[in-house]
Amino acid sequence: MSPRAPAADQRFILDHVVGFAEVAATDRFAEATPDTVTAILTEAARMCDDVVAPLNRDGDKHPARLENGIVRSSSGYDRGYRAISEGGWIGVSAAPEWGGMGLPHTLATCVNEMLSGACLSLQLKPLLTQGQIEALEHHADDAIKALYLPKLISGEWSGTMNLTEPQAGSDVGALKSKAEPNGDGSYAVTGQKIFITWGDSDLVSNVCHLVLARLPDGAPGTRGISLFMVPKYLPDAAGNPGVANSLRVVSLEHKLGIHGSPTCVMQFDGATGWLVGAPHKGMAAMFTMMNNARLGVGMQGVGVAEAALQKAATFAVDRVQGPTGTAEAGIIGHADVRRMLAEARAQVFAARAIGLACAKAIDMATATADPKWQARAALLTPIAKAFGTDTGIEVADTGVQIHGGMGFIEETGAAQYLRDARITAIYEGTNGIQAMDLVGRKLADNGDAAFRLIGEVEANAKAARAALPDLAGEVWQAAETLREATEALLAMAPQDRFAGAVPYLRAFALVLGADAHLKAAGADPARTPLAAVMIRRLLPAHAGLIDRALTGAADLYALSPADLGAPA
Amino acid sequence: MSPRAPAADQRFILDHVVGFAEVAATDRFAEATPDTVTAILTEAARMCDDVVAPLNRDGDKHPARLENGIVRSSSGYDRGYRAISEGGWIGVSAAPEWGGMGLPHTLATCVNEMLSGACLSLQLKPLLTQGQIEALEHHADDAIKALYLPKLISGEWSGTMNLTEPQAGSDVGALKSKAEPNGDGSYAVTGQKIFITWGDSDLVSNVCHLVLARLPDGAPGTRGISLFMVPKYLPDAAGNPGVANSLRVVSLEHKLGIHGSPTCVMQFDGATGWLVGAPHKGMAAMFTMMNNARLGVGMQGVGVAEAALQKAATFAVDRVQGPTGTAEAGIIGHADVRRMLAEARAQVFAARAIGLACAKAIDMATATADPKWQARAALLTPIAKAFGTDTGIEVADTGVQIHGGMGFIEETGAAQYLRDARITAIYEGTNGIQAMDLVGRKLADNGDAAFRLIGEVEANAKAARAALPDLAGEVWQAAETLREATEALLAMAPQDRFAGAVPYLRAFALVLGADAHLKAAGADPARTPLAAVMIRRLLPAHAGLIDRALTGAADLYALSPADLGAPA
Repeated sequence: MSPRAPAADQRFILDHVVGFAEVAATDRFAEATPDTVTAILTEAARMCDDVVAPLNRDGDKHPARLENGIVRSSSGYDRGYRAISEGGWIGVSAAPEWGGMGLPHTLATCVNEMLSGACLSLQLKPLLTQGQIEALEHHADDAIKALYLPKLISGEWSGTMNLTEPQAGSDVGALKSKAEPNGDGSYAVTGQKIFITWGDSDLVSNVCHLVLARLPDGAPGTRGISLFMVPKYLPDAAGNPGVANSLRVVSLEHKLGIHGSPTCVMQFDGATGWLVGAPHKGMAAMFTMMNNARLGVGMQGVGVAEAALQKAATFAVDRVQGPTGTAEAGIIGHADVRRMLAEARAQVFAARAIGLACAKAIDMATATADPKWQARAALLTPIAKAFGTDTGIEVADTGVQIHGGMGFIEETGAAQYLRDARITAIYEGTNGIQAMDLVGRKLADNGDAAFRLIGEVEANAKAARAALPDLAGEVWQAAETLREATEALLAMAPQDRFAGAVPYLRAFALVLGADAHLKAAGADPARTPLAAVMIRRLLPAHAGLIDRALTGAADLYALSPADLGAPA
Repeated sequence: MSPRAPAADQRFILDHVVGFAEVAATDRFAEATPDTVTAILTEAARMCDDVVAPLNRDGDKHPARLENGIVRSSSGYDRGYRAISEGGWIGVSAAPEWGGMGLPHTLATCVNEMLSGACLSLQLKPLLTQGQIEALEHHADDAIKALYLPKLISGEWSGTMNLTEPQAGSDVGALKSKAEPNGDGSYAVTGQKIFITWGDSDLVSNVCHLVLARLPDGAPGTRGISLFMVPKYLPDAAGNPGVANSLRVVSLEHKLGIHGSPTCVMQFDGATGWLVGAPHKGMAAMFTMMNNARLGVGMQGVGVAEAALQKAATFAVDRVQGPTGTAEAGIIGHADVRRMLAEARAQVFAARAIGLACAKAIDMATATADPKWQARAALLTPIAKAFGTDTGIEVADTGVQIHGGMGFIEETGAAQYLRDARITAIYEGTNGIQAMDLVGRKLADNGDAAFRLIGEVEANAKAARAALPDLAGEVWQAAETLREATEALLAMAPQDRFAGAVPYLRAFALVLGADAHLKAAGADPARTPLAAVMIRRLLPAHAGLIDRALTGAADLYALSPADLGAPA
């Protein structure tokens, strides 16, 4: 059974948890009426269920392959890609001026979550293109916009991001790729890039690479990096793919998961490119794009978690193993299996709500330019990314466990979700980097944005006290603990703060997730049992996480590399 | 780099944490002198490092395959298997009367952990044989013992366990395989078994299957199951492999991990077998064996965790990404990476100590027949199994994360540890079943064994107060919380107890792990920093786990299968 897209749950969150109506009330997004939302979610769900989800196993079994320098896609992906591009789903939030729908990023985020649950490997292709569209909309000159945006938005061409080099992973500033002026306004780009997602593809007529490289006068480190558009085929006078550029796919990686997504080593040998944005300002352009991409990756985790959970729940209904003593004959009647499913369901809802709250903040920032919404989006982004992807991995892992021995057999498909989801905690900034971003940059406003959000959680909890006294009380208390922990973190030296970053982020996510469940139960009493699972079973972990977050770094550095397992 | 066997850490635990001297002080194990322990650990470590560990990647890349009905092993496994069998390592704890060393199970457990870290897929072969040796020692008649034990102990033949059938996984009592008397004392065994580890192999001259099947007069359920020895080749008059038996490997499974270990579908078509133990008492024989096998699987988790951690620590020393502001140039200097390594190191030590405490209890029970030691072994077994294997998976997962993008690339080898370790939480009784065993059968003595152990932890903490007041105080408090939780659990209905089984087991393991670290720091002040990581960073999770454990089941059953994600 393929998973069904979670349109109903998304809609409930938009309407009753994150307050999407506020976005639709802005001039900028006035078209995002309830009817439009219904149409978007319904149509996207239908496409995901009918066309995309059935492709997921095949891409795993028959990975993308490199043949004579061209990447051949897994079978059926052409059908899926056509449905995505022809449906206009690449450009949900892109500018109408270039063919996009101009709708809120929140709706694009819903669609992207559905696509991720249906087929993560294929979804990566439009996701990367969307990132490129955004970068060009914000930073490219008019000529590049006019040439590239319509074709990227229609899906005729696709986009890639070329950051990583063998010696420059998380440390992007260490990159060595170079760009030399050709004298005609173009540049000759030279260097090797690794981990390039969908670096080539037979699904499109051109592949547009955004490449980070250093100009001859570029300073060392991140301040001296520029961004270039380097297409596989140089557009001719009519804007169609012309002469082949001096670049090639060297090889594809053999990976743990996302086998349908070709991960390329790219070689640029004096390839012709054009500057996007100002010289030496490439990192700024990257960051514009990366912030939204981070939310996108977080929602990939949520999407895979949803799919894995549905699969496990279906198995647990059908699989009979001994008497359960309950209404169900299947193992879903056993308390421990039901616990796994219920806790996973609560966590998925929490992660989805956090992701959509982040998306809403991005839209409000776009529509109002209010720095408070910008700060909210910036604060929620690392939480949405890390908690969403951790949820993807954890729920996929639970899914394997619920399948028992069958979960370890590849034909079952449960293991694929785990293998696929695993990368999401690594790419687009590892989850450790997300957590450092949270306790570093995102608290650099003396914690104002964080305290404002925690204050809202406390206010919500107070408002919920009449209807749900116990649950509301626990959420209020946890928020208060988080507030104190945030104050304590702010008083710490950076190294000590970083030593607690990951558990702090997780505690923050649990509090936000509990808040979302509390709102859900307030809006619909039928949601109270799941809120209780979140608040009574999952939220209590926040206290231990905060203890861990506030330990400081001294104990870590008291251990030598040899103590930790490295050769002495 | 291959991992190095953790002989020194094991030795420290034996001497200073679990009190192995008590085992060596018994008549039964008087030969287990400190010199013998040194010799065993040193020699086994040398074999693992030099011969076995280098085979690990090859088995993953070139899985075992089925050719004309015979399972061909991954390349190099013959060399590794020869070193294991010729070194006498299969029979470390087997009876000298049949060629074993007759040493404590604790030492066999140390060797098995080393082998697991070196090459889990290959280690499974002797592990299964050891289980069979034990079952035969306890339950077989003299003729079967004399015929099979010497060859199993020498490694000339190997053993398998045939329990699972497609409809009978965790519910062994649902099995359908049949055994009909042949009239000559032998039986004709018919049925299909799945998930049979090393069900065939070209490394040995005979494969001995222990098969669970039902006699014609066997009652339904587990009470009507008998155990049979069904060899691949029927021994001739001289005890050598003779005529082929009526059994075959139908297929090999395509699995997430342990690719070097052939997982077989076995078909028995009236295959000749001999009863092991009394008719209808097969489950009792299985349980004798399974209890020790569960500890063995727990130590597989610890072994893989150790190997994965060493790999990650080595990478973290070598990989340079940006300035760390510390003494180390590699990413091990970054606080978050160091946190991951330090927490993993603390957890591995804890899991190892719990496993060896369990092994010691098994030896003391064997040597003294004291029911208190038997109860201790029984109590610790599910904890050692579940916490050891969870540690294997979690630390292997951390290892992938530390490797960043390289961790997702199969050539790196980090992902293999995660894929391999994943099965350990499933086979030999899923970790959910372990937890249910803990809160069910293992607390059925009104919690006496548990309270006795918790009391020892409290006494240790009191004794440590003078030297380590803060750490000791936290361990004492956590033990007290665990005691109260245990009392609360005992007052609950079974379903409510089962709903909290997994978090309760985890909390118990954290307390025992903290106790082990406290003892280690007491014996060697250089171990205090790691103990602090355990007690300040990992132990605090116990409170949230206990909240979760005591929630009861009502909230879970308030959610319908459709609420949890199954089709409505």
